Amino acid sequence: MSIKIGIVGYGNLGKGAELAIKQNEDMELVAIFTRRDPSTFNNSKMANINEIESYKGKIDVMILCGGSATDLPQQTPEIAKTFNTINSFDTHADIPHHFEIVDKVGKKHETLNLISTGWDPGLFSIHRILGESMLPVGNTYTFWGEGVSQGHSDAIRRIEGVVDGKQYTVPIESALNKVRAGENPELSTREKHLRKCYVVVEGSADKAAIESKIKNMPNYFDEYDTEVNFISQKELDENHSGMPHGGYVIRTGKSENGMKQRMEFVLKLESNPDFTSSILLAYARAIKRMSDNGQTGCLTVFDVPLAMLSPKSNALLRKELL
Amino acid sequence: MSIKIGIVGYGNLGKGAELAIKQNEDMELVAIFTRRDPSTFNNSKMANINEIESYKGKIDVMILCGGSATDLPQQTPEIAKTFNTINSFDTHADIPHHFEIVDKVGKKHETLNLISTGWDPGLFSIHRILGESMLPVGNTYTFWGEGVSQGHSDAIRRIEGVVDGKQYTVPIESALNKVRAGENPELSTREKHLRKCYVVVEGSADKAAIESKIKNMPNYFDEYDTEVNFISQKELDENHSGMPHGGYVIRTGKSENGMKQRMEFVLKLESNPDFTSSILLAYARAIKRMSDNGQTGCLTVFDVPLAMLSPKSNALLRKELL
Repeated sequence: MSIKIGIVGYGNLGKGAELAIKQNEDMELVAIFTRRDPSTFNNSKMANINEIESYKGKIDVMILCGGSATDLPQQTPEIAKTFNTINSFDTHADIPHHFEIVDKVGKKHETLNLISTGWDPGLFSIHRILGESMLPVGNTYTFWGEGVSQGHSDAIRRIEGVVDGKQYTVPIESALNKVRAGENPELSTREKHLRKCYVVVEGSADKAAIESKIKNMPNYFDEYDTEVNFISQKELDENHSGMPHGGYVIRTGKSENGMKQRMEFVLKLESNPDFTSSILLAYARAIKRMSDNGQTGCLTVFDVPLAMLSPKSNALLRKELL
Repeated sequence: MSIKIGIVGYGNLGKGAELAIKQNEDMELVAIFTRRDPSTFNNSKMANINEIESYKGKIDVMILCGGSATDLPQQTPEIAKTFNTINSFDTHADIPHHFEIVDKVGKKHETLNLISTGWDPGLFSIHRILGESMLPVGNTYTFWGEGVSQGHSDAIRRIEGVVDGKQYTVPIESALNKVRAGENPELSTREKHLRKCYVVVEGSADKAAIESKIKNMPNYFDEYDTEVNFISQKELDENHSGMPHGGYVIRTGKSENGMKQRMEFVLKLESNPDFTSSILLAYARAIKRMSDNGQTGCLTVFDVPLAMLSPKSNALLRKELL
């Protein structure tokens, strides 16, 4: 019997999840919930978010594909009253609070929920815990990129005179190599990543002023070395329309004998939302099973035995993958 | 209260575990069991394997550090009658059978046991299941090295006229790059790894004959391109006395949109046994906790929630590592 999936939110992530379900033979898409009028989409699965309650009993797990700023903190505890849920809540500082709220709702309403999965938090968190547990004396470094940061691209586009723009976060190779060599460097924000911007401006715009505004923008750019490239809209559309991303989690440690050891995880993605949605589905499988086993409340990737992620039986996993 | 550890076997792995316990503040070494006479060691923790029963109730988890050929298949079910155990059984083809036997003993005698952990099987298996689950349409490749293979080094040393020798397994860079590029190549044994040998021979030995014997040795070398270097004992001792190893698990996949995605895990170890023993200890922590929760039988790395590996509380893990 297939796992019945609902999707809440139809942005890049929701669209990615809709497609990714086709790669998982044990899953079935039941409905996609949107705040917009479903009839404006040429898609028979669309439903209005107000109808969600009527799907009770028809959906095993809801994949929440909204944003972390406002959608997920509001939607997750609400939807968790009726359905098992998965989300990709990624405001690191607020995770403990979000967990407590969702855990309470889940336990009260007997649903099982998993928050903060995707690749970071999520897959990268897995590598941070593996690194720390297996090389207890050492240091962990996370680098992001090269990839498009949606938040930074948005920040550029809000500047007056800017028509369009994309921002790439780029890990600094020399820092990566110091880390890999086991030098355990203390790296400032500026030493770990640089920011590359591709910006389209209005014809009359003052480029020097815009460049300065970008480079000095607090929180977003001022702590980094930032490169600003002015290009045409055509060039932006042709060369910068994708959503690539990736990164590195590196753990370097020393054994008690003084031997240097390194674990490094590398991710190279042509599509960030496609990969994130694919991870959400793997955890939806786990949540369906663990919920069937009677678990309720809230989990994170740290609480899920990895066998739960795979459609294969435990015996087959031992035979083929161990 | 600390986790009380016993070690069975005092070769490279057992010695590594003895040292690695010092890096884990929540662990305490109770005894190291050997078939040899304990009084011949200058080590107050040594005990004879025949006394092991007298430690019942005094040890939470036994780390079994014997070899996979004969020690572990015999010792694991025997010791699992009295103690929780962890082993690094790595004969891939025999894992399903070994699991069944240990699971039966564990359930009957109410002990919890984890087999086949270390880095492969173990950490690499974790990457194989993550890859397959998160990129369901794709291919997984495992490469080993550059590192010393004990089995192949032993095989060289058994040849007449050979005094000493070391064999390095070396992944072939061009194959790695094809895999990374997402070309999904079909790679023969010869195309994935080459074998580099450093051999010390008797003065009168026929080097050409020895080189030919090595290169044509069935199962060990005949399916590989093998490089044989004759060196002096002094050179071998100075440059090849370590036990470095490592490897790569690479998963390349495509999203339903046709976007290429890659997950790559890289391991670089100056000491293979030091790292393996450190992983065994992390899983010993998990086994102690899961046993305290009432679980019995046999597990693998696929069955352990990752939070169990860390000495940190779940709340702290969510705060610091998620």
